[in-house]
Amino acid sequence: MEARGSLDGRGMAWLSGGGEESEIVLSTRVRLARNLQGFPFPIRAGVEDSARVLERARAAIEAADSLAGADIWTVDSMEARDRDLLLERHLVSRELLERASEGLSHAALVLSTDDAIGVMVNEEDHLRLQAFGAGFALEDTWRRVDRLDEELGALLPFAFHHELGYLTSCPTNVGTGLRASVLIHLPGLVLTKEINKVLEGISQVGLTYRGFHGEGSEVVGNLFQISNQTTLGKTEEDLVDHLARVTGKVIEYERSARTVLLREAPTVLEDKVWRAFGILRTSRSLSTGEMLNLLSGLRLGVSLKLLPMPRVETLNEILVLGQTAHRSREVGSTLDESDADVARAAYVRERLAEDETPRDHE
Amino acid sequence: MEARGSLDGRGMAWLSGGGEESEIVLSTRVRLARNLQGFPFPIRAGVEDSARVLERARAAIEAADSLAGADIWTVDSMEARDRDLLLERHLVSRELLERASEGLSHAALVLSTDDAIGVMVNEEDHLRLQAFGAGFALEDTWRRVDRLDEELGALLPFAFHHELGYLTSCPTNVGTGLRASVLIHLPGLVLTKEINKVLEGISQVGLTYRGFHGEGSEVVGNLFQISNQTTLGKTEEDLVDHLARVTGKVIEYERSARTVLLREAPTVLEDKVWRAFGILRTSRSLSTGEMLNLLSGLRLGVSLKLLPMPRVETLNEILVLGQTAHRSREVGSTLDESDADVARAAYVRERLAEDETPRDHE
Repeated sequence: MEARGSLDGRGMAWLSGGGEESEIVLSTRVRLARNLQGFPFPIRAGVEDSARVLERARAAIEAADSLAGADIWTVDSMEARDRDLLLERHLVSRELLERASEGLSHAALVLSTDDAIGVMVNEEDHLRLQAFGAGFALEDTWRRVDRLDEELGALLPFAFHHELGYLTSCPTNVGTGLRASVLIHLPGLVLTKEINKVLEGISQVGLTYRGFHGEGSEVVGNLFQISNQTTLGKTEEDLVDHLARVTGKVIEYERSARTVLLREAPTVLEDKVWRAFGILRTSRSLSTGEMLNLLSGLRLGVSLKLLPMPRVETLNEILVLGQTAHRSREVGSTLDESDADVARAAYVRERLAEDETPRDHE
Repeated sequence: MEARGSLDGRGMAWLSGGGEESEIVLSTRVRLARNLQGFPFPIRAGVEDSARVLERARAAIEAADSLAGADIWTVDSMEARDRDLLLERHLVSRELLERASEGLSHAALVLSTDDAIGVMVNEEDHLRLQAFGAGFALEDTWRRVDRLDEELGALLPFAFHHELGYLTSCPTNVGTGLRASVLIHLPGLVLTKEINKVLEGISQVGLTYRGFHGEGSEVVGNLFQISNQTTLGKTEEDLVDHLARVTGKVIEYERSARTVLLREAPTVLEDKVWRAFGILRTSRSLSTGEMLNLLSGLRLGVSLKLLPMPRVETLNEILVLGQTAHRSREVGSTLDESDADVARAAYVRERLAEDETPRDHE
């Protein structure tokens, strides 16, 4: 297992556009926070401690069946531009990148050959095992990360307290160390103004939500990451099962909101989704926020068959590749926001044109 | 000369998109208010008086060379829907239609076969002679209406006071009875926020402006009708010449504003005009006001060669045919505003598509 130069297209298997409930749920991920006994947590660890953690983790990872043939990238040695790609693909946290930028984090990213499973080393915790799935796939995604947990747990001494459970850098993760989340598109609930009621309901049953850009980010493009808030005092299975049941309800609500909209305001809806297409297809300058909002319109339009294109896979791809670091990588230089907006607009126009059959938009 | 059933395409020769300065000036019109001695002004006239005025006017019109073969429409007998077409083509005033709707106005519209010249009978004045030109064509348009004035003046006893000049229903028209106006597109001055200074300047030199929809209307789509305010105490030639010189200045200002925009904010400008195209090309519901504003973007884009299409003629056509009465006529029933917005959006999409060559918008 060696550092690979190219990140091209990696870590994006969840963008396939397939999976259960894929017209509402984009992707599922489950991560487990694990730490090694006898080492300080990464945030307090010295460089040598971190180097030894990486060394031990690497040995175990190489031995784990789930990660046979996996690739590893050491984040410290990456160019800043490539690190930002990982962030935009939701593969690492902003905090990890900040520490890695000093070149002393010994942080690493491991991805299986099919991008379905991986590990972050020396992030907030020594190990963050993560599995990814397209659409609404909590059960399957959970099983895959659980299997990896068993494999690595047999090889590494995980920090574990008989009453508290797995010990983690941040107290909110203590216990199972589990965070399961679904990335879900809720334009119907936003347009019918029912979203706040739903989000309140979610937080009352021990779940929480974030925006597309992760912790602390605003909601853009009607994309919500719903996840478990608590991790202590329940089994991992219970947490995953609970999230699955509540998400199932949210999907139902979203679906009926869309039905109501189609029945009560079909023209408004049709106009909205077509205009989103029109602007994305023609704009010459496009901020990330506006792009996400317009893509939401397209996604809704495709899902309700109001638009004949693009494919959901294309929408997902734009969601990631339309971001600034990806645009910078494409042109080979670091773009400032204003140039990035121009490059983004050009990319989106061209990418959508590829999905278009002549006279689709008439 | 008889009442003709079909108004199809009539009164729109000025939409050709040709003429001088046609990238800034859409059209020119000059009208002369004239009244017949011995008859009360239309607003105070009885039905019989109005009938006699029409009878006398008709005889003179039939004898005038400028109007050989002209068509006449008696407005009282028109369907309300057709009357609204005349309004949207700027051929009659709203006031005329209100009186005609009672069926007692004996109002009539006369148009030469080439639509370049005409007469309104029993409008605010007994006769309103009007000439139309494409682009910036004050001199030529004035000459045509002046010639008609001489022809009709030789046949009809125009009310004239040796000190005041021609007598008119409204005191603001007394004197020459002349109103010359240019329909001018000033997006550059609006975007650079210089428009108010220019409009103030205009009013300080005895000119005035209105919106696209005429007297009292708001400015939409950056379209201004600039015309002479005063009519008394100057010759007709002086008034026309003054308007021509001031308009020439305004055209210069607009042109330099566009140059500044192209130099200082090319991306903003390009983005603006392309988005206008994208929305017009895809929207499913479109108010008249929004249509006019977006058409302004297209017109600017075409003029600056930022957009490869549509033709100016198409833009002018949409300006008129995109309005509600024209859409109603097209579908054969009176549309309410919400249905009209849907029909308008469909018309604009299709009309623009006709001008489009494949992949124009990429």
